[in-house]
Amino acid sequence: MGRPDHLHAIVLLSGGLDSAVTLAIAQAEGLEPHALSFDYGQRHRVELEAARRVAAAAGVRDHRVATIDLRIFGGSALTDDIDVPKGRDASSMTVGIPITYVPARNTIFLAYGLACAEVIGARDIYIGVNAIDYSGYPDCRPEFIEQFEKVANLATRAGVSGEMFRIRTPLLRLTKAEIIRRGVELGVDFTLTHSCYDPAPDGVACGACDSCQLRLAGFREAGIADPIRYARPRSA
Amino acid sequence: MGRPDHLHAIVLLSGGLDSAVTLAIAQAEGLEPHALSFDYGQRHRVELEAARRVAAAAGVRDHRVATIDLRIFGGSALTDDIDVPKGRDASSMTVGIPITYVPARNTIFLAYGLACAEVIGARDIYIGVNAIDYSGYPDCRPEFIEQFEKVANLATRAGVSGEMFRIRTPLLRLTKAEIIRRGVELGVDFTLTHSCYDPAPDGVACGACDSCQLRLAGFREAGIADPIRYARPRSA
Repeated sequence: MGRPDHLHAIVLLSGGLDSAVTLAIAQAEGLEPHALSFDYGQRHRVELEAARRVAAAAGVRDHRVATIDLRIFGGSALTDDIDVPKGRDASSMTVGIPITYVPARNTIFLAYGLACAEVIGARDIYIGVNAIDYSGYPDCRPEFIEQFEKVANLATRAGVSGEMFRIRTPLLRLTKAEIIRRGVELGVDFTLTHSCYDPAPDGVACGACDSCQLRLAGFREAGIADPIRYARPRSA
Repeated sequence: MGRPDHLHAIVLLSGGLDSAVTLAIAQAEGLEPHALSFDYGQRHRVELEAARRVAAAAGVRDHRVATIDLRIFGGSALTDDIDVPKGRDASSMTVGIPITYVPARNTIFLAYGLACAEVIGARDIYIGVNAIDYSGYPDCRPEFIEQFEKVANLATRAGVSGEMFRIRTPLLRLTKAEIIRRGVELGVDFTLTHSCYDPAPDGVACGACDSCQLRLAGFREAGIADPIRYARPRSA
């Protein structure tokens, strides 16, 4: 691959705004990213197409898509036929855990990222979790990430040999507006990203689900126009 | 399901000897087991058939098989076309990590088990890892299990609400011979179990790979005849 192993990194890439910025940060930090996306039976498969576009635009040479069937677990609006909540105010979303929570999702995603990192010889695993505008998911909290890093270093051959894995969370303490500004600085093309939990069949974002609301509020706060199309007029 | 949530348990069931005994122990401890097996592109798919037989014989009413494609990672004899080592002495197997190691496997399996437990409302996740006759896998060590339990309780809705998950490892400190004796006490039918890394097309165990050697040594030490067939005569 042309670089020492420790200059390779795994980047979990959903195709959303946060993971696109995370990918750009990994590259800005001098690492050769290997993007890892998940096809987990989500309703918004358009997200995976966004991940492919984002990876291609960033010049990623190795993009893997792991098919994992979370439907055997059920229990979430993103994989079951439960209505996605609409029109909630962004400020209320961090209260409680939303119905869109997928059980143990980041634990599963990081476990796959760890397997991938171990095989490639990468030491850094980037994940775009955020503890500020984070929709109330328990597996986005800093203490979860710290604990998973400990597991990573006990679970693997690499951990035994003393070469430590790092779970890299460059967005952890940023607001959505700060993430957007950082992305703009790094040249991220936000037209390629997808955030909506409930897009139209042609991929157009609904503008009303929690994820659209958080995204729109972030762009507003950053004073930047969101370049993607929305199905309904944006609220002021 | 007829029982309070906390009396349900997830049991990771490979179809091997250890997981069959683990399942019997979970039942002996008064829990209603939900068996979880993994189809991860392993060469020994006969293992999954063994898991189905073991679950059926134990009267398990809920047996889920999660298809996960570890082949996107490569790097292991159990998923790649690398020869399985044969004829190694059981006493030498705990030195180093064998080629049959699947990257981050128990981390991935436990992450799935956690998702399943969270949805069902189970609090106990049983896994038949063993720190004695364990073939040198880093993710069978007690410290790995302890750290994963902490991750489980940070990753989930349940952890947030204060209802704690437990990773149950009843075989952790037992020798293979002790595991076999415990299984016999609990009425486990070992003819249904499968341990071989490299079985013949009809499922008959090779008798020479690390897993067969450990199993045979355990039965010898327990003074019990292994009831399964082997392709080659057993060593004394």
